Formats: sequence, structure tokens, C-alpha cells
Amino acid sequence: VSGLAERVLEGCPVSGGRLIRWLEDGDPRGIEALRVVYPQTGKSHLIGLTGAPGAGKSTLVDAFIAELRRRGHRVGVIAVDPSSPFSGGAILGDRVRMQRHATDDGVFIRSMATRGRMGGLARASFEATLVLDAMGYDVILVETVGVGQDEIEVVELAHTTVVVSVPGLGDDIQAIKAGILEVGDVFVLNKSDRPGADDAERHLRMMLHLRPAAEGAWMPPLIRTVASREEGVAELASACAAHRQHLLEQGRLERVAADRNEHFFRELVRDRALEEVLAAAAASRRFDDLLAAVRARRIDPYSARDALLAAVGPHATDARGERGAEG
Amino acid sequence: VSGLAERVLEGCPVSGGRLIRWLEDGDPRGIEALRVVYPQTGKSHLIGLTGAPGAGKSTLVDAFIAELRRRGHRVGVIAVDPSSPFSGGAILGDRVRMQRHATDDGVFIRSMATRGRMGGLARASFEATLVLDAMGYDVILVETVGVGQDEIEVVELAHTTVVVSVPGLGDDIQAIKAGILEVGDVFVLNKSDRPGADDAERHLRMMLHLRPAAEGAWMPPLIRTVASREEGVAELASACAAHRQHLLEQGRLERVAADRNEHFFRELVRDRALEEVLAAAAASRRFDDLLAAVRARRIDPYSARDALLAAVGPHATDARGERGAEG
Repeated sequence: VSGLAERVLEGCPVSGGRLIRWLEDGDPRGIEALRVVYPQTGKSHLIGLTGAPGAGKSTLVDAFIAELRRRGHRVGVIAVDPSSPFSGGAILGDRVRMQRHATDDGVFIRSMATRGRMGGLARASFEATLVLDAMGYDVILVETVGVGQDEIEVVELAHTTVVVSVPGLGDDIQAIKAGILEVGDVFVLNKSDRPGADDAERHLRMMLHLRPAAEGAWMPPLIRTVASREEGVAELASACAAHRQHLLEQGRLERVAADRNEHFFRELVRDRALEEVLAAAAASRRFDDLLAAVRARRIDPYSARDALLAAVGPHATDARGERGAEG
Repeated sequence: VSGLAERVLEGCPVSGGRLIRWLEDGDPRGIEALRVVYPQTGKSHLIGLTGAPGAGKSTLVDAFIAELRRRGHRVGVIAVDPSSPFSGGAILGDRVRMQRHATDDGVFIRSMATRGRMGGLARASFEATLVLDAMGYDVILVETVGVGQDEIEVVELAHTTVVVSVPGLGDDIQAIKAGILEVGDVFVLNKSDRPGADDAERHLRMMLHLRPAAEGAWMPPLIRTVASREEGVAELASACAAHRQHLLEQGRLERVAADRNEHFFRELVRDRALEEVLAAAAASRRFDDLLAAVRARRIDPYSARDALLAAVGPHATDARGERGAEG
């Protein structure tokens, strides 16, 4: 483990990939290695990209990588895919577009899928950003497909959030955009050579003006791009750099990073608290009884929860004695 | 509370609405009332509708309601909206389309937004389906906008899942569809009068043929609709009824319902376990110290979690003594 951690810190892509896989698989060596490299993290600029499906995010990320490389940055990319609950695997094939960067050792691209249920996505991508950070990438792009709560969680892990829109999508999409409008630091209108781009830009600017803005607050720029021709991508890179600079000058970069750490810590506590409760419950066989009763509707789920946690939760009055008696 | 529960069981929409609001707000009276009505639930047919944004789900739901009414069913609708993390509110305006049913007392429509973080959406919609179930609606439609993990969770709460697609969306959307392809029981190609509908149908049928199918398994039908003209909606209603009948005949409806109860029970245990751990931690002030260390990167989040749970988790060896000493 310590050998692997050392190679990750040297930027070895094979070791980085293995560590991410361990973390995804819940292999305990993953956390062990991550603890070793953790003190060396915190240096990368984390940029989250999100937006409606069909906005051309993969093409944009591809062009963005090229631009960041021209500026001399080493770039890590985490592409978060919606996963199939059956196969558990990533399903998007269009990552191939980014493969032109595969031979560039200044670029590391990793596709991730949600394996578990709740929190799987946010946790896995947080851990992957730590690995890429430890590997020494200056900029880490986290791209998510979709518009749900998961995606908002993922972008909340970033220092700078880029919201990608596109002209001519339906009302649904316009409405959804409003949901992530408030978390965006930089807005991109991609495919801006399409009909309706001026209308879409006007609409977006209007919505941005409705955002509550405090004194000295960052004014999110709106950038028109045509990612397939790499148009506007230099402006995008500059806007992200300017946002980071703004956070630094306001002393806010540290707070954003601290919030990110706190958020992740709370997730870890939540997950482990459940595991411990379930482990304690399994030892007393009470969980199986309650579960059977819940499944058969002999008890409502709220009462079953209360009964379980009264027996084995952190406030249990006789948890150890009872487990001893039944064990 | 017992008066409200009684009126909910009588189908009073004002009381049902109030109970859902209590549940959303975390008002303890909500759970209390839900416990009272719980034994009367389990009778409704729960139908989840999901699919890519722009697929016209709201219009489809509107036409679906009309068809179910023609068949004499009482219909409850839960429209789950992606919510703004800032305002906490629902943001979709196009529910107004369904307002023509507002004066029909056989129809109850409720818009919901995700309030909390993790699990907020799934929990709130599960609880709302229980309320509508208790109110005596024969069919409950749960409509979600989006394509993320949240949406998959919501449709997993349904007996019958309808996946709505549409011709002519981009590659991204086609790929995302694959993620929910495996959870669909009935597939709808809406706006099927559009160019490209035949291609989209062929593509969908091909993907459906790739699904692993066991002997005697349900073969998901693909139904072409033009929701704005109510075309194909009778076929949709029949397909959903046929799916329920199939589950009944195979003895699987009970298992689906039991899975649903188990899933919800586990969510409740998880949430409460975290609350209890955090409450115990707050009492010992250890949480604040660890949180400050995590925020300042003086400790990695994994070690902080372990330290916290060693002190106050269900396996804590000296939790009560320590809390007593510091409290």
C-alpha cells in the first residue's frame, strides 16, 4: 500500500488507476492508501461541468482539455456516467471522443459510474478527485451528465462550477436549468452557431440578473462556445482561472475547500453509522425479524426503525447486554 | 392527528395535502398520522414515469389521467421536480397543463421538490404515495423529470415503470436511456408523429431485445404516443394494467411491494442512525473538534469519521461514560 501511495504521489497513471479502482470496489487498501496521500492534496483547481443532456459536454471537455494543455497545465478528468442499476457499469460510449488525449501523459481521464445507491456518486467522485490531486494534476475537471440532485452534489464538490446550456432545447430543459442556475460560477452557451442562440443568450442573461447578488460578489460570465470547432474555449479557460483568482482574493477558496471537506466527512459518518447499526442489528438477529415484518406489512417502517434503533442504535440502553445474551 | 388521519382515509384532499406538507416539513405529527393510516395502504397501483427531459412527460401524464378517469379510476399524481438548492422550491411551471383536472375530485395532483440532500426525494415521494394510497386512489402516477440516480430510485418505488422517450434527441440522451432501459416495464415513444420516429422505434426495439429475459418474464411493450392529441394513451393504460395483472399472476406483486417496504425501511434506519450519531457527538463536543480539524485539513475525513464513531457510534466502548463526563 505505501509503495502504491508513493507511486501515486509521483504521478504514475497505472497506480492512480488502481487506487481509484480499489476505492470504487470498497477495497480497504484504497482508504489506507488515500490516508497516506491525503496530506499532499488540496493543490488542484477543481472545476465541475454540468448541464442538460445533449448540450455537448463531452466535446466541450475535449476542447477544454486541449486549451488547458496549451496553457501548460496537467489535466485530470473524471467523467461521471449514469450507471445501469442492473449491470452496475458505465454506459456512455462517447468518451472515445476524448481518446485523442490518451497518449498525452499530461492528461488522465477516468470514467466513473455510480456503483452503490445513495451517496455512491458523490463519494466516489470525491475520492477520485483526491487521487488525481495527489497525482499532481493542476486542474481537475469533473463532468456529469444529467440534471438531478446527484449532479448538484457533484458540482458542489468543485471550486468552480460550469453550467453548460445549448440553444433550442425544450421548455423542460429551460426549467431544469433554473435548478442549477444558482450553483453556476461560469455559464456556457454551447453550439452557439445554432439558430436560436441569441434568444437563448438573452433568456440566460435575464435569469442570471435575477440571481441575488451581494456586494463584491462574483458576477458569473456567460460564454458562447462552439466546442466542435474549439471556439470560445480559451475564454472558458480564462473565466475559470479568473473565478479561482476571485476566490483566492476574497479569501474564499479556503472556505470552499473546507466546506467540501465537511460535506464529505458528513457523508462518511452517515454511511458508517448505518453500517454499524446494521452490523449490530445483524448480531442480535433483531434486524431479520423486523425486516420480515416490514416486508409483510405487519409493522410500519417507522415503528420498525424505532424498534431497531432502540435495540442497537447509539442510544440503546442495553445493546451490549442484549447482543451478548443472543450471541 | 387522529382526526386528520381519519379524514385522510375518507379521501379529504385538504387533509391529504396537509399531511404531505407535514411530512415534507419533518413535522412529527406527519409520521404520527402516517402510522395511523399505514395499515389501510397497499391497495393502489403505483406507476412511475421517467425519461429524458423534453420527452413531453407532463403532457403525457395529463392525457394519461384523462384516460384513467374514462376507465373509472381515481387517480393520484405526484410530480417530482428537481429543486433549486438555494430556494428549496419546485421550479417547473408546466404543471399548469394538468390543471384542467383540478376541479375533478377523482384526481389529486401534488408537486414535490427535493428539500433535503441525500434520500430526500425518494423518501418524500414514498411517503406521499402512502398518503395518496390511504386516500383511496386506485392508480398513483409518480412522474420524475431527469435521468439520474434519484429518478431510478423513485421509479424503483413503483410497481410498474414507464420509460418515456422521444425521437430525435442527441446521442447523449440515447445513451442515458440505456441506463433506465433495464428498469422499464412499459416503453413509450412520445411525439411519435415527428421525423425520425421509425428510426427511434427500431433503435429502442433493438435495445429491448438485448435485455436479458428469463422464461415467462414480462416482455416490455413499446407504445407510440402523441400525447398532445391523446393518441396511444389508451394502449398505455392497457399496458400498465396488463403489467400489474402479470405481476399478480406470477405472485410477484407482493414481492415488489415487499421490496419497496424494505428499501424504505433501510432508508429510514440510515437517516436516523446518522441523526443519533450526530446527536450523541454533539453532546460530547467531539464532533465540533473533529469537524474543525477536517475543515482545516489537520485530519483526513476517514480518520475523523473513525474517531467520531469510536467515541459515539453504536460500537463505542465508553460512549455513555464519556458523554456523562463531558456533559
